[in-house]
Amino acid sequence: MKITLDPIGIVSTDVEKIPRHWTVSVAEGDLIINNSYIEGLREIQTGQRLYVIFHFHKSPEFSPEYIRIKPQVSDKIVGVFSTHSPIRPNPIGLSILEVLSVNDNVIHVRGLDMLDGTPILDIKPATDP
Amino acid sequence: MKITLDPIGIVSTDVEKIPRHWTVSVAEGDLIINNSYIEGLREIQTGQRLYVIFHFHKSPEFSPEYIRIKPQVSDKIVGVFSTHSPIRPNPIGLSILEVLSVNDNVIHVRGLDMLDGTPILDIKPATDP
Repeated sequence: MKITLDPIGIVSTDVEKIPRHWTVSVAEGDLIINNSYIEGLREIQTGQRLYVIFHFHKSPEFSPEYIRIKPQVSDKIVGVFSTHSPIRPNPIGLSILEVLSVNDNVIHVRGLDMLDGTPILDIKPATDP
Repeated sequence: MKITLDPIGIVSTDVEKIPRHWTVSVAEGDLIINNSYIEGLREIQTGQRLYVIFHFHKSPEFSPEYIRIKPQVSDKIVGVFSTHSPIRPNPIGLSILEVLSVNDNVIHVRGLDMLDGTPILDIKPATDP
Protein backbone atom coordinates (compact mmCIF):
# COMPACT_ATOMS: atom_id res chain seq x y z
CA MET A 1 0.00 0.00 0.00
CA LYS A 2 1.40 3.35 -1.04
CA ILE A 3 0.54 6.68 0.59
CA THR A 4 0.63 9.86 -1.45
CA LEU A 5 1.16 13.28 0.10
CA ASP A 6 1.04 16.79 -1.25
CA PRO A 7 3.14 19.50 0.48
CA ILE A 8 1.23 22.21 2.40
CA GLY A 9 4.04 24.71 1.91
CA ILE A 10 7.75 25.26 1.66
CA VAL A 11 10.72 26.36 3.79
CA SER A 12 12.43 29.62 2.84
CA THR A 13 15.74 30.63 4.40
CA ASP A 14 18.82 32.57 3.36
CA VAL A 15 21.03 30.83 5.94
CA GLU A 16 23.70 29.08 3.91
CA LYS A 17 25.14 26.70 6.48
CA ILE A 18 22.11 24.98 7.96
CA PRO A 19 22.95 23.17 11.23
CA ARG A 20 22.63 19.39 11.24
CA HIS A 21 19.74 19.30 13.73
CA TRP A 22 17.15 21.59 15.31
CA THR A 23 18.46 20.80 18.80
CA VAL A 24 21.64 22.67 17.94
CA SER A 25 20.23 25.28 15.52
CA VAL A 26 19.38 28.95 15.91
CA ALA A 27 18.97 29.41 12.13
CA GLU A 28 15.93 31.46 11.16
CA GLY A 29 13.63 31.21 8.20
CA ASP A 30 10.03 31.16 7.04
CA LEU A 31 7.47 28.41 6.68
CA ILE A 32 5.45 29.64 3.69
CA ILE A 33 2.13 27.84 3.75
CA ASN A 34 -0.22 27.58 0.78
CA ASN A 35 -2.89 30.28 0.92
CA SER A 36 -5.65 27.68 0.86
CA TYR A 37 -4.66 26.66 4.41
CA ILE A 38 -4.36 30.16 5.91
CA GLU A 39 -7.42 29.77 8.16
CA GLY A 40 -5.77 26.74 9.72
CA LEU A 41 -2.87 28.86 11.00
CA ARG A 42 -4.80 31.57 12.84
CA GLU A 43 -4.13 30.37 16.43
CA ILE A 44 -0.37 29.84 15.98
CA GLN A 45 1.41 32.28 18.27
CA THR A 46 4.81 33.83 18.86
CA GLY A 47 6.81 31.82 21.37
CA GLN A 48 5.01 28.58 20.63
CA ARG A 49 6.87 25.47 19.50
CA LEU A 50 5.72 23.49 16.49
CA TYR A 51 6.32 19.96 15.29
CA VAL A 52 7.12 20.43 11.62
CA ILE A 53 7.03 17.32 9.45
CA PHE A 54 8.81 17.66 6.12
CA HIS A 55 10.19 15.86 3.09
CA PHE A 56 13.95 15.20 2.83
CA HIS A 57 13.71 16.19 -0.81
CA LYS A 58 17.46 16.19 -1.49
CA SER A 59 18.19 12.74 -0.05
CA PRO A 60 19.34 9.88 -2.26
CA GLU A 61 16.92 7.00 -2.49
CA PHE A 62 17.08 4.60 0.45
CA SER A 63 18.85 1.29 -0.08
CA PRO A 64 20.04 -1.49 2.29
CA GLU A 65 23.49 0.10 2.71
CA TYR A 66 21.81 2.89 4.74
CA ILE A 67 20.16 0.59 7.31
CA ARG A 68 23.22 0.81 9.58
CA ILE A 69 25.11 4.10 9.52
CA LYS A 70 27.53 6.28 11.49
CA PRO A 71 25.83 9.47 12.73
CA GLN A 72 27.85 12.69 12.31
CA VAL A 73 28.07 13.05 16.09
CA SER A 74 29.12 9.51 16.93
CA ASP A 75 31.88 6.99 16.23
CA LYS A 76 29.50 4.07 16.50
CA ILE A 77 27.58 2.50 13.64
CA VAL A 78 23.90 2.22 14.57
CA GLY A 79 20.52 1.40 13.05
CA VAL A 80 18.86 4.14 11.01
CA PHE A 81 15.86 4.18 13.37
CA SER A 82 18.15 5.22 16.21
CA THR A 83 19.27 8.27 14.24
CA HIS A 84 17.74 11.33 12.59
CA SER A 85 19.58 10.57 9.34
CA PRO A 86 18.02 12.21 6.27
CA ILE A 87 18.48 8.95 4.36
CA ARG A 88 15.70 6.70 5.69
CA PRO A 89 13.16 4.23 4.30
CA ASN A 90 10.59 7.03 4.13
CA PRO A 91 12.34 10.37 3.65
CA ILE A 92 10.37 12.21 6.33
CA GLY A 93 11.94 14.69 8.75
CA LEU A 94 10.67 16.05 12.04
CA SER A 95 11.84 19.28 13.62
CA ILE A 96 10.66 21.19 16.67
CA LEU A 97 10.82 24.88 15.81
CA GLU A 98 10.10 28.07 17.76
CA VAL A 99 7.63 30.56 16.30
CA LEU A 100 9.05 34.09 16.17
CA SER A 101 6.09 35.66 14.32
CA VAL A 102 3.15 34.85 12.08
CA ASN A 103 1.98 37.04 9.21
CA ASP A 104 -0.88 35.68 7.15
CA ASN A 105 0.50 32.50 5.56
CA VAL A 106 4.12 33.00 6.69
CA ILE A 107 5.45 31.60 9.98
CA HIS A 108 8.86 32.97 10.90
CA VAL A 109 10.74 30.35 12.92
CA ARG A 110 14.02 29.70 14.74
CA GLY A 111 15.81 26.37 14.98
CA LEU A 112 15.78 25.42 11.30
CA ASP A 113 17.60 22.32 10.16
CA MET A 114 15.89 22.16 6.79
CA LEU A 115 17.30 23.44 3.52
CA ASP A 116 15.78 26.31 1.59
CA GLY A 117 13.03 24.87 -0.59
CA THR A 118 12.18 21.93 1.68
CA PRO A 119 8.56 20.79 1.17
CA ILE A 120 6.49 20.97 4.38
CA LEU A 121 4.01 18.14 4.97
CA ASP A 122 2.38 19.01 8.30
CA ILE A 123 2.46 21.30 11.33
CA LYS A 124 1.23 20.35 14.80
CA PRO A 125 1.42 22.10 18.18
CA ALA A 126 4.41 20.75 20.13
CA THR A 127 3.03 21.27 23.61
CA ASP A 128 -0.75 21.12 23.79
CA PRO A 129 -2.25 17.72 22.92
CA MET B 1 4.78 17.70 -6.51
CA LYS B 2 3.50 14.50 -4.89
CA ILE B 3 5.46 12.41 -2.40
CA THR B 4 4.88 8.68 -2.22
CA LEU B 5 5.59 6.65 0.91
CA ASP B 6 5.54 2.95 1.68
CA PRO B 7 4.86 1.82 5.28
CA ILE B 8 7.76 0.26 7.19
CA GLY B 9 5.40 -1.72 9.41
CA ILE B 10 2.07 -1.83 11.19
CA VAL B 11 0.58 -1.27 14.66
CA SER B 12 -0.93 -4.29 16.41
CA THR B 13 -3.00 -3.91 19.56
CA ASP B 14 -5.93 -5.67 21.18
CA VAL B 15 -6.95 -2.58 23.17
CA GLU B 16 -10.47 -1.79 21.99
CA LYS B 17 -10.90 1.77 23.28
CA ILE B 18 -7.80 3.56 22.13
CA PRO B 19 -7.27 6.89 23.97
CA ARG B 20 -7.50 10.05 21.90
CA HIS B 21 -3.82 11.03 22.36
CA TRP B 22 -0.53 9.55 23.53
CA THR B 23 -0.21 12.20 26.25
CA VAL B 24 -3.17 10.57 28.03
CA SER B 25 -2.65 6.95 26.95
CA VAL B 26 -1.24 3.91 28.75
CA ALA B 27 -2.52 1.55 26.04
CA GLU B 28 0.01 -1.09 25.01
CA GLY B 29 0.65 -2.72 21.67
CA ASP B 30 3.28 -3.73 19.17
CA LEU B 31 5.03 -1.95 16.34
CA ILE B 32 5.62 -4.80 13.90
CA ILE B 33 8.35 -3.71 11.51
CA ASN B 34 9.03 -5.31 8.14
CA ASN B 35 11.81 -7.88 8.42
CA SER B 36 13.87 -6.09 5.78
CA TYR B 37 14.46 -3.26 8.30
CA ILE B 38 15.33 -5.42 11.32
CA GLU B 39 19.01 -4.34 11.37
CA GLY B 40 17.83 -0.75 11.71
CA LEU B 41 16.15 -1.49 15.05
CA ARG B 42 19.05 -3.12 16.91
CA GLU B 43 19.91 -0.18 19.22
CA ILE B 44 16.33 0.55 20.31
CA GLN B 45 16.12 -0.10 24.05
CA THR B 46 13.60 -0.67 26.81
CA GLY B 47 12.68 2.60 28.51
CA GLN B 48 13.53 4.72 25.49
CA ARG B 49 10.95 7.02 23.92
CA LEU B 50 10.34 7.02 20.18
CA TYR B 51 8.81 9.47 17.76
CA VAL B 52 6.50 7.30 15.69
CA ILE B 53 5.17 8.80 12.46
CA PHE B 54 2.16 7.03 11.02
CA HIS B 55 -0.67 7.20 8.50
CA PHE B 56 -4.18 8.13 9.66
CA HIS B 57 -5.50 5.38 7.41
CA LYS B 58 -9.11 5.55 8.63
CA SER B 59 -9.56 9.31 8.22
CA PRO B 60 -11.96 10.74 5.66
CA GLU B 61 -10.33 12.75 2.90
CA PHE B 62 -9.47 16.32 3.91
CA SER B 63 -11.72 19.09 2.61
CA PRO B 64 -12.06 22.82 3.45
CA GLU B 65 -14.71 22.15 6.13
CA TYR B 66 -11.94 20.60 8.29
CA ILE B 67 -9.64 23.64 8.24
CA ARG B 68 -11.27 25.03 11.39
CA ILE B 69 -12.51 22.48 13.90
CA LYS B 70 -13.47 21.97 17.55
CA PRO B 71 -11.00 19.65 19.31
CA GLN B 72 -12.54 16.97 21.58
CA VAL B 73 -10.99 18.62 24.63
CA SER B 74 -12.01 22.22 23.90
CA ASP B 75 -15.09 24.36 23.33
CA LYS B 76 -13.23 26.66 20.96
CA ILE B 77 -13.04 26.25 17.21
CA VAL B 78 -9.43 26.49 16.06
CA GLY B 79 -7.25 25.97 13.01
CA VAL B 80 -6.34 22.38 12.18
CA PHE B 81 -2.60 23.13 12.56
CA SER B 82 -3.20 24.02 16.23
CA THR B 83 -4.67 20.56 16.84
CA HIS B 84 -3.66 16.93 16.54
CA SER B 85 -6.85 16.14 14.59
CA PRO B 86 -6.64 12.98 12.48
CA ILE B 87 -8.35 14.83 9.62
CA ARG B 88 -5.60 17.05 8.19
CA PRO B 89 -4.30 18.08 4.76
CA ASN B 90 -1.74 15.27 4.89
CA PRO B 91 -3.06 12.41 7.06
CA ILE B 92 0.14 11.98 9.08
CA GLY B 93 0.18 11.35 12.81
CA LEU B 94 2.98 11.69 15.35
CA SER B 95 3.08 9.93 18.70
CA ILE B 96 5.76 9.72 21.35
CA LEU B 97 5.72 6.18 22.70
CA GLU B 98 7.67 4.39 25.43
CA VAL B 99 9.52 1.19 24.54
CA LEU B 100 8.68 -1.70 26.90
CA SER B 101 10.66 -4.37 25.03
CA VAL B 102 12.14 -5.23 21.64
CA ASN B 103 12.17 -8.73 20.15
CA ASP B 104 13.58 -9.01 16.66
CA ASN B 105 11.21 -6.94 14.48
CA VAL B 106 8.59 -6.28 17.19
CA ILE B 107 8.73 -3.23 19.47
CA HIS B 108 6.31 -3.47 22.38
CA VAL B 109 5.23 0.05 23.36
CA ARG B 110 3.07 1.95 25.84
CA GLY B 111 1.14 5.15 25.11
CA LEU B 112 -0.62 4.06 21.93
CA ASP B 113 -3.17 6.36 20.36
CA MET B 114 -3.20 4.53 17.03
CA LEU B 115 -5.73 1.96 15.94
CA ASP B 116 -4.87 -1.68 15.32
CA GLY B 117 -3.64 -1.94 11.74
CA THR B 118 -2.25 1.59 11.50
CA PRO B 119 0.57 1.81 8.91
CA ILE B 120 3.86 3.03 10.41
CA LEU B 121 5.94 5.39 8.26
CA ASP B 122 8.99 6.16 10.39
CA ILE B 123 10.58 5.77 13.83
CA LYS B 124 13.12 8.20 15.29
CA PRO B 125 14.70 8.46 18.74
CA ALA B 126 12.79 11.03 20.83
CA THR B 127 15.69 12.16 22.97
CA ASP B 128 19.07 11.82 21.32
CA PRO B 129 19.52 14.09 18.31
